[in-house]
Amino acid sequence: MKVLVVGASGTIGRAVVQELSSRHDVIQASRSNSTHPVDISQPQSIAALLKKVGPVDAIVAAVGDIHFGPLAEMTGEQFRLGLNSKLMGQVELVLQGQKYLNEGGSFTLTSGIAVDALIRQVVNASSVNCALEGFVRGAALELGHGQRINIVSPTVLTESLPVYGPYFVGFESVSAARVALAYARSVDGAGNGEVFRVW
Amino acid sequence: MKVLVVGASGTIGRAVVQELSSRHDVIQASRSNSTHPVDISQPQSIAALLKKVGPVDAIVAAVGDIHFGPLAEMTGEQFRLGLNSKLMGQVELVLQGQKYLNEGGSFTLTSGIAVDALIRQVVNASSVNCALEGFVRGAALELGHGQRINIVSPTVLTESLPVYGPYFVGFESVSAARVALAYARSVDGAGNGEVFRVW
Repeated sequence: MKVLVVGASGTIGRAVVQELSSRHDVIQASRSNSTHPVDISQPQSIAALLKKVGPVDAIVAAVGDIHFGPLAEMTGEQFRLGLNSKLMGQVELVLQGQKYLNEGGSFTLTSGIAVDALIRQVVNASSVNCALEGFVRGAALELGHGQRINIVSPTVLTESLPVYGPYFVGFESVSAARVALAYARSVDGAGNGEVFRVW
Repeated sequence: MKVLVVGASGTIGRAVVQELSSRHDVIQASRSNSTHPVDISQPQSIAALLKKVGPVDAIVAAVGDIHFGPLAEMTGEQFRLGLNSKLMGQVELVLQGQKYLNEGGSFTLTSGIAVDALIRQVVNASSVNCALEGFVRGAALELGHGQRINIVSPTVLTESLPVYGPYFVGFESVSAARVALAYARSVDGAGNGEVFRVW
């Protein structure tokens, strides 16, 4: 399969590329990639990437920024960071990407444990991740040509504990390599509308 | 209690005003209201409303536009309608409104059944409603001063069947008056982080 991984230079993205490369032809895209640069907060940048890459059998999105911080001080502008980046970046990849995905192809998006975790300062993540899971459930009912869509919801990564550990006290972390298995289940499997929780 | 109802001229809003008015001092705000006009897609308009109304004991939001239509033809611009209106309108009301809500006061927001319904053409609603429920769950953990936040998720309204009925074939509709009871439960009750499903 020809698989486009958006966010390939991130902690999850690198592990997904490694996991998929033994079986598939993986195309890496990221903000810093010299061959396939993409800024997912810009719809035109996504359009240019898809046009350049052409038809693919799977699109994986492991990408997106989120605002972390206390509700009492949060501004609408800060809240919109997650909407414009993690949410709309992935939604645009599907809305535009459905025309580039081959018969039977799959989308695999990324949410996160904040949806289900009773922790503070993650209201932007909680909202954006819920929105993505709702989008995936709705889109799974409508995609044509045998196309599928799933989403991976990881807990905090072991590799990210130095930065995000303080928000996730008491949470067992998982390695990016283990999270990458869920993306492989989505790409190589038959699931549609699934939320793969990894925690 | 002094209760601000945003979206007071809508089908749900009018029923909420009627339900609450016998017990509370209700201030009505809506796009068309001459005393308290508000465009919830504009953060400054929300700021002006809150400043004019001053401290309140409850803020109810029964408001927001959503894009209905097939995924195959949906553009990012159309998807952003729900984000800028129904989602960010209500999120801004909370982010800004927490400074205007008295000790022990409550927010009551509005999502909708699309989150849980296996129907087509509602992917924007599904995503936005999920985002709102995720926001409420997260915000309920962080609000200070005894403030509470809940959300009402109605199915299709009997009054709205002429417009939305075709999307909700086989769904039992509910009257706006019955939906309004859930807002009363939130305002007068003690719940926090609750999703009141009415269907």
